[in-house]
Amino acid sequence: MSLPVSASSFKQLLGDRAVLDRAEDLTLYEYDGGVDKHKPDLVVFPRTREQVKAVVDLARKENLQFVGRGAGTGLSGGVIPRYGGVMVSFARMNQIEEIDLPNERMQVQPGVVNLDVTLAVQRDGYFFAPDPSSQRACTIGGNVAENAGGPHTLAYGVTTNHVLGLHVLMPDGTSFETGGPEQDLPGYDLTGIITGSEGTMALVTGATLRLMRQPELVKTVLAIYNTTEDAANTVSEITARAITPVAVEMLDGEMLRMVEEATHAGYPLDAQAVLLIEMEGLTEAVEEQVEQVRLACEACHCREFRIAKDATERDLLWKGRKNAFGAVGRMSPFYYVQDGVVPRTKITETLLEIYRIGEKYGLKISNIFHAGDGNMHPIILFDARIPGQLRAAQLAGDEILAYCISVGGSITGEHGVGMEKMELMAQQFSDDTLEMIKDFKNLFDPECRLNPGKLLPLGKCCGEIHQKPGTTF
Amino acid sequence: MSLPVSASSFKQLLGDRAVLDRAEDLTLYEYDGGVDKHKPDLVVFPRTREQVKAVVDLARKENLQFVGRGAGTGLSGGVIPRYGGVMVSFARMNQIEEIDLPNERMQVQPGVVNLDVTLAVQRDGYFFAPDPSSQRACTIGGNVAENAGGPHTLAYGVTTNHVLGLHVLMPDGTSFETGGPEQDLPGYDLTGIITGSEGTMALVTGATLRLMRQPELVKTVLAIYNTTEDAANTVSEITARAITPVAVEMLDGEMLRMVEEATHAGYPLDAQAVLLIEMEGLTEAVEEQVEQVRLACEACHCREFRIAKDATERDLLWKGRKNAFGAVGRMSPFYYVQDGVVPRTKITETLLEIYRIGEKYGLKISNIFHAGDGNMHPIILFDARIPGQLRAAQLAGDEILAYCISVGGSITGEHGVGMEKMELMAQQFSDDTLEMIKDFKNLFDPECRLNPGKLLPLGKCCGEIHQKPGTTF
Repeated sequence: MSLPVSASSFKQLLGDRAVLDRAEDLTLYEYDGGVDKHKPDLVVFPRTREQVKAVVDLARKENLQFVGRGAGTGLSGGVIPRYGGVMVSFARMNQIEEIDLPNERMQVQPGVVNLDVTLAVQRDGYFFAPDPSSQRACTIGGNVAENAGGPHTLAYGVTTNHVLGLHVLMPDGTSFETGGPEQDLPGYDLTGIITGSEGTMALVTGATLRLMRQPELVKTVLAIYNTTEDAANTVSEITARAITPVAVEMLDGEMLRMVEEATHAGYPLDAQAVLLIEMEGLTEAVEEQVEQVRLACEACHCREFRIAKDATERDLLWKGRKNAFGAVGRMSPFYYVQDGVVPRTKITETLLEIYRIGEKYGLKISNIFHAGDGNMHPIILFDARIPGQLRAAQLAGDEILAYCISVGGSITGEHGVGMEKMELMAQQFSDDTLEMIKDFKNLFDPECRLNPGKLLPLGKCCGEIHQKPGTTF
Repeated sequence: MSLPVSASSFKQLLGDRAVLDRAEDLTLYEYDGGVDKHKPDLVVFPRTREQVKAVVDLARKENLQFVGRGAGTGLSGGVIPRYGGVMVSFARMNQIEEIDLPNERMQVQPGVVNLDVTLAVQRDGYFFAPDPSSQRACTIGGNVAENAGGPHTLAYGVTTNHVLGLHVLMPDGTSFETGGPEQDLPGYDLTGIITGSEGTMALVTGATLRLMRQPELVKTVLAIYNTTEDAANTVSEITARAITPVAVEMLDGEMLRMVEEATHAGYPLDAQAVLLIEMEGLTEAVEEQVEQVRLACEACHCREFRIAKDATERDLLWKGRKNAFGAVGRMSPFYYVQDGVVPRTKITETLLEIYRIGEKYGLKISNIFHAGDGNMHPIILFDARIPGQLRAAQLAGDEILAYCISVGGSITGEHGVGMEKMELMAQQFSDDTLEMIKDFKNLFDPECRLNPGKLLPLGKCCGEIHQKPGTTF
């Protein structure tokens, strides 16, 4: 049996072992960390920038759509090929190309894993700041596409603050470089507009990253509360004392019980909330900050304030936070994570609203989130086998995000819009702003071949294009 | 004598006192802090967003070009109406609209003066981080347009890191809002692309700024050297010790003598270079940092290390730095400031190259710059009354910037491209990148009415449009 035209032409280009087209293989590429699914028609694994260009040129010639893929750990469906087409995996472009420590930067291919950047320089005392929970798996290309955050966003900012320049390939096959050695570059900030564009403008084929020096001392504390309100008030109290910890994470009672049962991190089972607070810097400053944070926690009636004595205790505290989703998975067969942002002065009322919405839909909602940023991550537990529960979970999620908008917040802190929150963009932004976003998309991708059907409400975003008749895989 | 049509129609719109059209008035608006000049045909002073829109709509109807203006302190000709048209001054839109301290932000009109933002909140312990030397005069709208920096860029970043959202008016009269309460917003980063677009994409009619908490302690030190090389090496040595001061400013021997004679800041006249280094933060941390910086300076053979004892001494040290341009003006009737960036490991060789270029053209070049960022500000002294010297100064400036590019740097750190460095963009970027910049300009301003003839090499940028026949002012 001869291969269909398109698959064989891609195999000719890259070799048989760089193309997947069997249904059982494609199934592994139909999802990300979110809830949406769709199979690509073909997955290709280029090894060089030239091969990426050849793939894009051939896809255009064959009238196919395409989407770039890192590790597929995204949470909003950004990588789902919703209308099929070619998935360009960067898994084999995973080389660190240059490390320049005196100028504190590194040149990488897009498939380099986030944590590997830090591992490559940590013996020299450096690290890469963005640290999404998926950092052991997720790749730099994906981090750039989604403008990834992480617990340490509070002090260090998100990915866009740590990308100095990019190599990009446009959907029409032209490539260009953006950025350079410095923050304020001549001309328009092309690096900035592409970072966070959720893979809809161009394929990222290389990145220059900013490295940071490791702090002299890290201190992690756990503050335990009898009410969520006291914990939430502590966040504002810390700000009022002019302290910026590198991370302020909050787990509510529901969540800390699930996490404790799974990880035995030492969270008390009868508490209503805990804050996990980390400070970094010079020894003297950190010790002073810990003292200030202790006072802030006490002023907000924390019932216990624990300081991790050593790296082992610190890792244990973080283990609870970083493995939270696994812990939820033990308790509930299905869950749906949201990602709203509110001003940090509105955390308490937002939590109360989340609980109210949970009761309304008869669903348990637990919360684990970046409290310092006001970046909420309500986790809605449901059972998809019970008719109506999936729908109820989605409605509850939408209602939570609408509330976030209503108090001056936003529908995503770090997970992106993707497929999941497209319709909510119309609540977040005026028509004029949505038109502007659409104009930008058209500028980069007038034929709508790259990651179509994302970011904007359907009808406003570029949709399904006509596939070449008779093309089958 | 009746007024020409256009001036009178603008007067009808805004009132007589909100429009300037007499030649002697227009002369005051023909320049900025750079070397280029051209008069507008009309200057208008709207008071509201609605009036700005009315002005833009009328200008379009009259087939006129227009440009926004803050305080005119820019250094690259960004505000010069090179083909005439309407200048939209934001001088009367200078209100602070909302201060939200718990969420650390402020909503302002574009004409608010940079320093006034800090003055409005300093009693509450906050400040606005970008601090260009012109901060007593320059406005937020101009800071956003140019993505302004300042000595404290090293630790705090440039304007784009401190703008949360914008109100913008497109050249076609539509307006939209960008941004919101948080760093990583849904959709494309429109705030980021407009910030630093040098007034060529849209008029900024409002901004939400991020406020920062004042540090507990500030320490300023002066390190004095017998060679520029030792001073430059100190910059890398400080980085190697994992210290990030908030500012590391360098003055070479030529410059420090001019500054000392003008300001009596206490710089030694026989030194070859001084570093002005500032550290901020919690008391204990700052004291530890000062000690580390002292060790770094000593390792690089500084001959003296002075710590400002109090605020008065600190202000005196900064007075020398902040009034440098005035000091140069005393010594030389004309000077030309450049703004190249190099990796901080290349500062020494770049200074040597600058001196070589000065000798080649027979011109004295002194240097005062943000050494921590590698952001060079060579000041080329010349006398325009001597035939050929202006041209020689410009050639020397271009040669310095070409050198910056050749060592992996860029042609501007904070002053922008404007009219001044348009042609150098072709050395900095590939044709594909320039095309991309042009495409962005077309997206925002397809008729090329807003600040035309900037940013891109002539021939590539949008040029002079046809003015309505018979329109005179």
